[in-house]
Amino acid sequence: MAYLNENYLKLQAGYLFPEIARRVRQFLEKNPDAAKKLIRCGIGDVTEPLPQAAIDAMKRAADELGHRETFRGYGPEQGYDFLRSAIAQTDFRNRKVDIADDEIFVSDGSKCDCSFVLDILGDQNKVAVTDPVYPVYVDTNVMAGHTGSARKDGSFEGLVYLPCTAENNFVAEPPKEHVDVVYLCFPNNPTGAVASRDQLARWIEYARQHDALILFDAAYEAYISDPKIPHSIFEIKGALEHAMEFRSFSKIGGFTGVRCGYTVLPKTVLAKTESGKKLPLKPLWQRRWSTKSNSVSYPVQRAAEALYSPEGRKQCRTLIDHYMGNAKILRRTCEEIGLGVYGGENAPYIWVKTPAGLTSWQMFDRMLNEINVVITPGSGFGAQGEGYFRVSAFNSRENAEEVARRIKHFK
Amino acid sequence: MAYLNENYLKLQAGYLFPEIARRVRQFLEKNPDAAKKLIRCGIGDVTEPLPQAAIDAMKRAADELGHRETFRGYGPEQGYDFLRSAIAQTDFRNRKVDIADDEIFVSDGSKCDCSFVLDILGDQNKVAVTDPVYPVYVDTNVMAGHTGSARKDGSFEGLVYLPCTAENNFVAEPPKEHVDVVYLCFPNNPTGAVASRDQLARWIEYARQHDALILFDAAYEAYISDPKIPHSIFEIKGALEHAMEFRSFSKIGGFTGVRCGYTVLPKTVLAKTESGKKLPLKPLWQRRWSTKSNSVSYPVQRAAEALYSPEGRKQCRTLIDHYMGNAKILRRTCEEIGLGVYGGENAPYIWVKTPAGLTSWQMFDRMLNEINVVITPGSGFGAQGEGYFRVSAFNSRENAEEVARRIKHFK
Repeated sequence: MAYLNENYLKLQAGYLFPEIARRVRQFLEKNPDAAKKLIRCGIGDVTEPLPQAAIDAMKRAADELGHRETFRGYGPEQGYDFLRSAIAQTDFRNRKVDIADDEIFVSDGSKCDCSFVLDILGDQNKVAVTDPVYPVYVDTNVMAGHTGSARKDGSFEGLVYLPCTAENNFVAEPPKEHVDVVYLCFPNNPTGAVASRDQLARWIEYARQHDALILFDAAYEAYISDPKIPHSIFEIKGALEHAMEFRSFSKIGGFTGVRCGYTVLPKTVLAKTESGKKLPLKPLWQRRWSTKSNSVSYPVQRAAEALYSPEGRKQCRTLIDHYMGNAKILRRTCEEIGLGVYGGENAPYIWVKTPAGLTSWQMFDRMLNEINVVITPGSGFGAQGEGYFRVSAFNSRENAEEVARRIKHFK
Repeated sequence: MAYLNENYLKLQAGYLFPEIARRVRQFLEKNPDAAKKLIRCGIGDVTEPLPQAAIDAMKRAADELGHRETFRGYGPEQGYDFLRSAIAQTDFRNRKVDIADDEIFVSDGSKCDCSFVLDILGDQNKVAVTDPVYPVYVDTNVMAGHTGSARKDGSFEGLVYLPCTAENNFVAEPPKEHVDVVYLCFPNNPTGAVASRDQLARWIEYARQHDALILFDAAYEAYISDPKIPHSIFEIKGALEHAMEFRSFSKIGGFTGVRCGYTVLPKTVLAKTESGKKLPLKPLWQRRWSTKSNSVSYPVQRAAEALYSPEGRKQCRTLIDHYMGNAKILRRTCEEIGLGVYGGENAPYIWVKTPAGLTSWQMFDRMLNEINVVITPGSGFGAQGEGYFRVSAFNSRENAEEVARRIKHFK
């Protein structure tokens, strides 16, 4: 009989979002009348229509496929040049960050990229993640056999956890010990925290001293409004040798259902063999895509390209302003009722301290039952998330205002 | 410094299709006038327009995303029910094969699925592939560390190779030795061979005796015209316990650039842990998709669904008839000039013996230089492919007829 990958058995059955879905379903079965009142501020999924520029481009591309002269079959496995070039120029070179077109790798989303990156890395690496953390970083390392078993608090043996707390403003400092690979996410999911230029510079300095690789998840960079906050790790000197960056069109262009993102892997990033030979990582990533993929749907790549057009950019801006308007309302309301509030200023997530004595899940259950609002319990993101909850600003204005009204009456 | 995955370094630099592209480029640099005359029958990429039903569905779906009421964000990670259900009903239950909707997993293509399946399997498995073989099966096992180094003939230590030759009609018999996992592909890429019901039954019997898992690639099943040839491994008794099937919309619906496919993994397929505990594989595959993906673009899933509509089915039929018309012309021509010809009757590939004394690459170079036709050298698919070449029927009728004319004058 074929052997299965036993590492999967270490994963806890109760993955966060399915568990939330289960509790909501159970609640609605007991309270069918509440269905109409229920407002979801849990999962970070966009709600507003796709930018018209993207729709038009996708439809034009679909029509092109209907004619022999303009039909396209297999595209380049790393993405079409038109998209790689628009990305590198607009998101990097126009911001004085020196990234070449061929250092951009188009994918069907950031979640996939964060997972796939382990394909090209060795199993010997010492890996660090923050706590709280986006669960995909942890779970994919578990699946790849990079950890021991789960501890009672849900953390895994073999990973280095970097606590993010109110004391450090939810931005982890580099550890004292050596690690080879570290996942950083700014603006942060789930805490909404951002890292300053100085803080990122300390991370690059750590990476330089330890010859470490930083996997930088910048899926929410478009939500940064403070001009002092870097949008890309590559704005920091030395990062071109020590980082790989993950970007997504999900939250900037409402692409959660359309699926497109990209990674940036500079030619100058090296990694080593067991015997100490240093080689660039990029050819491995290139090969990974050539062998395991045929890239992203052509109409989707055209839709992503359209987000870089003048109309596309304006429409994205409107979307982001909309969601950040929600964030402002929700943040202020939580403050008004006296809760400790973080994030929500350069990120679409608000990270809120539960009222004294309530655990994250108790707060989840109370908000569900008493004001019919679904949030995400902080403890689902790690032990340090206990005593917090995440409110997502992805919603209609009407819903955000209604949630604010209900929170005001929450006792 | 982070460790890289050294297994990638075992892969040969000269991957087949890039090497073909290099030789064509070199030829065109020397003979710029030949560019207009060049006809590509190399890579198996479709050429004809996408079925109109798929285009219309994709455009309708794009429009839906433009309105708040019909907007969709993250979809189910294993695919939308509307598509899983259309697939299970049409491709399986209507053909009396008992597959449930939730045993269908939608993906962005068969190449990806063939790669990703290794995520859920153990590294201890003894793996068998055919020779010649679709290179992805081999390369992904190399990347996953399941092999030793490459031998001179391009094969890898640690894999079991099953020779497919003219003597066995290019259908491998089960090996004498034990293997845990075996990749089979029918209709075959590259040889165009098909397996009879009896031959597949012998494979399932082997799988039963050895408790082996068959990874069955049926990406070309739509090209089967002989009513006696099974379209799915699950038409064979016992397969529901021993197989996983890969399907694609690439060749049936011209989706090579649109990207959609699926796997079938029945609940009844078990695999074991090191300690011998037997568990169903399906929950691992389910979890793999939940953690590493957010499924396929919504408009693409609607386009795939449209291939199952009455118009969609008719349009797919027309596409297949077109390509199989080409196959007939090309097959007949190769026979007429006295070459040994295989495949091309239930598959869009014709597998041709090179004239006496010519290697696959010599034939490639001669056809490129003398008649400006690009084919695929058989040796690129494995040692047993030496002395053969593959002609793809994916082309316009005009090009197929022109290739036939030129082949007639080939000396």
